[in-house]
Amino acid sequence: MKLPLGYRYSSTYAGIRKDKRDDLAIIASDAPASAAAVFTTNRVQAAPVRLARKHLEATGGEARAILANAGNANCATRTGMRVAEACCRAAAKELKSPMTQVLPASTGVIGVEMDASLVTGSLPALFEGLSETRFEDVSRAIMTTDRIPKVAFGEVPFNHGMASIAGMTKGAGMIHPRMATTLGFVMTDAEIEPGPLASMLRRSTERSFNRLSVDGAMSTNDTLILLANGASGLRPTSKERMVFEEVLCWVMQDLAEMIARDGEGANKKVTVHVVGAKDDKAATQIARAIANSPLVKTAIAGSDPNWGRILSAAGASGVEFDPDKVDIRLQGVPVCHRGLAAEFSEIELKKKLDASDCVIRFAIRGQGKGETCFWTCDLTEGYIRINASYRT
Amino acid sequence: MKLPLGYRYSSTYAGIRKDKRDDLAIIASDAPASAAAVFTTNRVQAAPVRLARKHLEATGGEARAILANAGNANCATRTGMRVAEACCRAAAKELKSPMTQVLPASTGVIGVEMDASLVTGSLPALFEGLSETRFEDVSRAIMTTDRIPKVAFGEVPFNHGMASIAGMTKGAGMIHPRMATTLGFVMTDAEIEPGPLASMLRRSTERSFNRLSVDGAMSTNDTLILLANGASGLRPTSKERMVFEEVLCWVMQDLAEMIARDGEGANKKVTVHVVGAKDDKAATQIARAIANSPLVKTAIAGSDPNWGRILSAAGASGVEFDPDKVDIRLQGVPVCHRGLAAEFSEIELKKKLDASDCVIRFAIRGQGKGETCFWTCDLTEGYIRINASYRT
Repeated sequence: MKLPLGYRYSSTYAGIRKDKRDDLAIIASDAPASAAAVFTTNRVQAAPVRLARKHLEATGGEARAILANAGNANCATRTGMRVAEACCRAAAKELKSPMTQVLPASTGVIGVEMDASLVTGSLPALFEGLSETRFEDVSRAIMTTDRIPKVAFGEVPFNHGMASIAGMTKGAGMIHPRMATTLGFVMTDAEIEPGPLASMLRRSTERSFNRLSVDGAMSTNDTLILLANGASGLRPTSKERMVFEEVLCWVMQDLAEMIARDGEGANKKVTVHVVGAKDDKAATQIARAIANSPLVKTAIAGSDPNWGRILSAAGASGVEFDPDKVDIRLQGVPVCHRGLAAEFSEIELKKKLDASDCVIRFAIRGQGKGETCFWTCDLTEGYIRINASYRT
Repeated sequence: MKLPLGYRYSSTYAGIRKDKRDDLAIIASDAPASAAAVFTTNRVQAAPVRLARKHLEATGGEARAILANAGNANCATRTGMRVAEACCRAAAKELKSPMTQVLPASTGVIGVEMDASLVTGSLPALFEGLSETRFEDVSRAIMTTDRIPKVAFGEVPFNHGMASIAGMTKGAGMIHPRMATTLGFVMTDAEIEPGPLASMLRRSTERSFNRLSVDGAMSTNDTLILLANGASGLRPTSKERMVFEEVLCWVMQDLAEMIARDGEGANKKVTVHVVGAKDDKAATQIARAIANSPLVKTAIAGSDPNWGRILSAAGASGVEFDPDKVDIRLQGVPVCHRGLAAEFSEIELKKKLDASDCVIRFAIRGQGKGETCFWTCDLTEGYIRINASYRT
């Protein structure tokens, strides 16, 4: 898969985290790129989140680089904003750009002061290492408790050529205590202005990252940035933009699904497919309730075709529906028909639920065309071990 | 503690559940009692929930008996309503009362047809066993996965004597798959009309059972019934009613706390105390978010003073507050001061968090007087083992 043109990547070990893995990374566009971002809606927002938002406002949606670190969230600290500013200022100097064209993102421990000099002192090495091909190095540097790096690619056929999209993300796991955060960075070489770019990102986020739940926790640092530097020379028509948005959404859905699959302690990715709701919003609300139910998630972990828990979770979602009009399928097998137990072979279905991909389909008859897909993972003892293990 | 006058209790094994423990129980008032109830707000409601509501409407809030069974929720079944009606009708015949004066309640498997003849065939033995002292037998018969029976008592000093309140409940655990449900039955010998009784129950539920979360799951069968038979001959004045309601609330809070302590796999009861919010509702919303956070609950399981997770969970609650004005205490020890890390001995605090009672205090400065207590439990590997263990 071709990487988008006009971006360079680098990562290095700055000493922010204890284990000696790269913890500082940069994604730099050769020319200023249109930039859009969505951030956590948590009332508690880390300094880099606040600063990135401020920078985007100041530039009207233009950026040269994303500067990211793992190992410290730079959140709930006395020096948070000063540190984030110092890091951006130093990176901007190397780039010979205004400071506002650098977007910071951090993940790691909350409530521990971060040493800006670790970052600024590592910038020469970081910039030294910039290369068009080190995309995956960056995706590894932002990993905290992720078991695998998460990258996804897309190509968009325009009339005059092919534009590329490349995205990376890190998981919402909190394997080491005080660590959290989803970070996502998506780059394209299509030429799109900041305004429409922001709309596309917002809509695509709604259909990807906002349909994902590992443990219902929302970080103080969640950040998703989309850059479009136009290096392909391709400027989509309004029709082509729709194609672009579709591919963008696929790439982002790929990334979201990877996070679900790599959830803390997870053995299975679970897709909750809701159809026939009043509208998409209602469908998503039902899907979210099912996906957040620890009882459903432990049942999936145990390959238990326990549809009563699914029906009950949906019933508690706040969405109105008639339970007598509900059909539920697990792995394609009808388990609940019009709100009542369907006939199925429990032994065979258990075997099917041992798969690493599980699909719950929740259908309402005759209410509407609302539909959604929502991604989560099973809930295993591993999740608990990971999150309670601080003392051991 | 004196049991309220004028009630008799019985339980027996009717063969509804597999293991041979009593699974059918009755609480009978010698005379018709004022009755009030609150039920699950799940869209999926078991037949006994629908029938009990219908009976209360028909009588305007009067009942002779509560007929409860464990082992089958009588929910999402073809014959649900017919079964519930047959059971109530047969019990009413024994009581020589209208059928509408019997309130049914069930807990157990969802989606499995229930055999009414198991209940009706056991009624002679059940009524044979009625006794004023078998209160705890009933509290044991409604247990499903509870480790301990849960009962609480109160006495209310009126001008002309002492009225009694006795309550029992069962936990919201779901240790055996497809089992859920909180059932609660509270009896008093004070004389109170159905109207005010219902208001008292509603308000007290708000301050007790509605401030409880084990795993965020809401059953299809949750039922809480309050009976007042007036057997003490004491009819409280409007002032005395306030005292009565206070004691009723204590009894119900005791029961709710017992459920938290006996949560699935739980080793610790956790009390989340929020103060200084805009109003009580906002305080409860923050407390609920903290109590429902698997990350907070696993941290408590691991005795990890991880206040960042608490602050982050509160920030995601949807309530607006200024993070810089938040103080957090764990076991009385300040861990977060004005949104930043406080100085504390991690080793000493870990030791304190090993206690079976943990208290999280979340205080907002200068926003208001909103305050709440919310109960939950820690989240351990036991919870997962229990809920995913169906296949083993």
